[in-house]
Amino acid sequence: MAAPAPVSPLAVPLPALPPLAGVRLAAGAAGIRYQGRTDLLLVECARGTTVAGAFTRNLCPGAPVDWCRAILPAGRARGLVVNAGNANVFAGRAGLAAARESAVAAGRLLGCPARQVFLASTGVIGEALPAGRIPAALPALHAALAPDAWEQAARAIMTTDTFPKAATRSARIGGDEVRLNGFAKGSGMIAPDLATMLCFVFTDAAIPAPALQSALSRAVGASFNRTTVDSDTSTSDTVLLFATGEARHPSVPERGGRLLAEFRAALDDLLHDLALQVVRDGEGASKLIRIAVTGAVSSASAKRVAMAIANSPLVKTAVAGEDANWGRIVMAVGKAGEPADRDRLSIAIGGVWMARNGAVAAGYDEAPVLAHMKGREIAIEADLGLGTGAAEVWTCDLTHGYITINGSYRS
Amino acid sequence: MAAPAPVSPLAVPLPALPPLAGVRLAAGAAGIRYQGRTDLLLVECARGTTVAGAFTRNLCPGAPVDWCRAILPAGRARGLVVNAGNANVFAGRAGLAAARESAVAAGRLLGCPARQVFLASTGVIGEALPAGRIPAALPALHAALAPDAWEQAARAIMTTDTFPKAATRSARIGGDEVRLNGFAKGSGMIAPDLATMLCFVFTDAAIPAPALQSALSRAVGASFNRTTVDSDTSTSDTVLLFATGEARHPSVPERGGRLLAEFRAALDDLLHDLALQVVRDGEGASKLIRIAVTGAVSSASAKRVAMAIANSPLVKTAVAGEDANWGRIVMAVGKAGEPADRDRLSIAIGGVWMARNGAVAAGYDEAPVLAHMKGREIAIEADLGLGTGAAEVWTCDLTHGYITINGSYRS
Repeated sequence: MAAPAPVSPLAVPLPALPPLAGVRLAAGAAGIRYQGRTDLLLVECARGTTVAGAFTRNLCPGAPVDWCRAILPAGRARGLVVNAGNANVFAGRAGLAAARESAVAAGRLLGCPARQVFLASTGVIGEALPAGRIPAALPALHAALAPDAWEQAARAIMTTDTFPKAATRSARIGGDEVRLNGFAKGSGMIAPDLATMLCFVFTDAAIPAPALQSALSRAVGASFNRTTVDSDTSTSDTVLLFATGEARHPSVPERGGRLLAEFRAALDDLLHDLALQVVRDGEGASKLIRIAVTGAVSSASAKRVAMAIANSPLVKTAVAGEDANWGRIVMAVGKAGEPADRDRLSIAIGGVWMARNGAVAAGYDEAPVLAHMKGREIAIEADLGLGTGAAEVWTCDLTHGYITINGSYRS
Repeated sequence: MAAPAPVSPLAVPLPALPPLAGVRLAAGAAGIRYQGRTDLLLVECARGTTVAGAFTRNLCPGAPVDWCRAILPAGRARGLVVNAGNANVFAGRAGLAAARESAVAAGRLLGCPARQVFLASTGVIGEALPAGRIPAALPALHAALAPDAWEQAARAIMTTDTFPKAATRSARIGGDEVRLNGFAKGSGMIAPDLATMLCFVFTDAAIPAPALQSALSRAVGASFNRTTVDSDTSTSDTVLLFATGEARHPSVPERGGRLLAEFRAALDDLLHDLALQVVRDGEGASKLIRIAVTGAVSSASAKRVAMAIANSPLVKTAVAGEDANWGRIVMAVGKAGEPADRDRLSIAIGGVWMARNGAVAAGYDEAPVLAHMKGREIAIEADLGLGTGAAEVWTCDLTHGYITINGSYRS
């Protein structure tokens, strides 16, 4: 019951991100909310960069999300501006004006139209973004743009995050190697049906925007949309994927196709890595939980059951308390509203099947399960015994840390 | 961050329940889980008692719920047996056998068929109910049956509850007074789409089972189904309404009708009272929250939006922290998946409209709102500005107490 640890016990080391042809970054301080840290990021992309995006499905999105949605169809990007501390959400016309002002200022510095500058903001909702603060800070960032500022970028966008989150992968397109670098932030207000808080991925591949969007949508569905920290869908969730086209490889057709198979796999893997880093930094998290549901009537049904387990406060607090309380998993399966039959349901924790076909498994020994519960990574399996639908989702436990962080976020 | 208070700060005094013609009660100890307290309740109802019920919609219900569902259609009741500490859920055939055994033993004592004995169990899920323990304890309870043991009854069914919950009302049927007495338990695993944990209501009115069921279903929809503690739907939720028919009043037709208008209003009021008592004893609760949504496209839509706010961990922790963080309310409205338009949305706390039509209200002064947040009862209003649909739901805040209780419930 101490104050939350300064760094999540589930944190992973920050990987070194190599430079990526066509991308330069700079972090700085706009002084909007935080003192003594960076809170503003400027990214410059090479001419010809294509872009794909995925945004929150929250119906009260922030002004930067509206901005990105409006400019995304052109599929072209030259810049990205991200600020942390103020989400520019529910700020009315002033919010949209502040967003536009940032894009115009960045476009002027980068030598491109404002509509090629993507924006994201994260932080408190409902407070006006102080006018002019971002445009005033951007020239210094522009002067400092560098190809190796990935760590600084990952740090500048953090809010309640306790560690910076980044990942890098490579893939071949027609035998030629391309690189993917990505970073993300997110810790609370993390739930499915969205694209987590903020995630930015860059590749030097040359990929037409439609193929890029298709690869991104698939990867988001298999990664961020299968994680949840607290079931609360943010108003600002944004995933953007920029392809600078600086790498040399066979030309990729509009629709992508088989030439992109390895690229798509690397993108899936990278987004999965970043999504799990977000869950590992779930507010107050002390354990990472993998929930695998099998035997459902469909994979969509399996996902909904898995999410019902992942979002159950009683399951999450039981894991926090290292209590192998599988009865709460039964409850969560039953409340999901999906086809389920108590008398075919089986539950395992840490690979030990505790309940089989609606009752305690014969000879069930709790000892190995209790040992598993003491670890940092908890595996929950539920087999519904109805069909072949399967899904896997990730979440974290619900601890005193979550209450402490969110009972005093603004103060 | 201390251990949870022994009694909820939102507790209300237990009202004195007068005897009710046709009902005798007794509490005792079966020693199934708890030491040094009562954990078993026997209620005897007069011959001719009619009954109505509402049960959990969780698809993994407990054996007692299966039992009640099977015998309810006959609409006749002579007895009720409730045990606390073991929910008899997910216990396979042994669970159903244990339930039947309790009903048979009680029926023998009460001189009625087992199928006129209703059952409810609450407590840990997935542990076998020790065979014979309840039948062995029942004769002593039968010998002690008394018309004034309402408080003992309300206490015997408690689990994590911190105070007993009861209410009494009277109503006239055709000018003659009838009485309603009810008691309930529930503190966690409380969510909508169900009939809370356990609630038992008794009346001396003579009401045909169909009319009784119709009155109960309506009242449950307007009370328990509009409350949530933690969004987790229990496997054992049961509301039963028994009408002993001992009062004298004009004969009530099968379909009820206008003769029951005042009775229905009293029942609504009594269930609303009990439902709020359950929320007031929400695990770890320090504040009672009323959420009123107006301006939705329909009342069903308004209820779903209100429940999205009520189940948002970020809204609930903000209230716990006395933080007037209306941005989180905006987020919850937006994630509900119901028609909403950010630019028509208005939010109030404590009667002060903080946001109007998608932006901070002109001249908004946070001081009176912060004063309201320090109180025990918090009023949140959201006007969607779309139509005339309205709904009101109740919940409690999410505190360290909830984590403490549920991280160690079994230990």
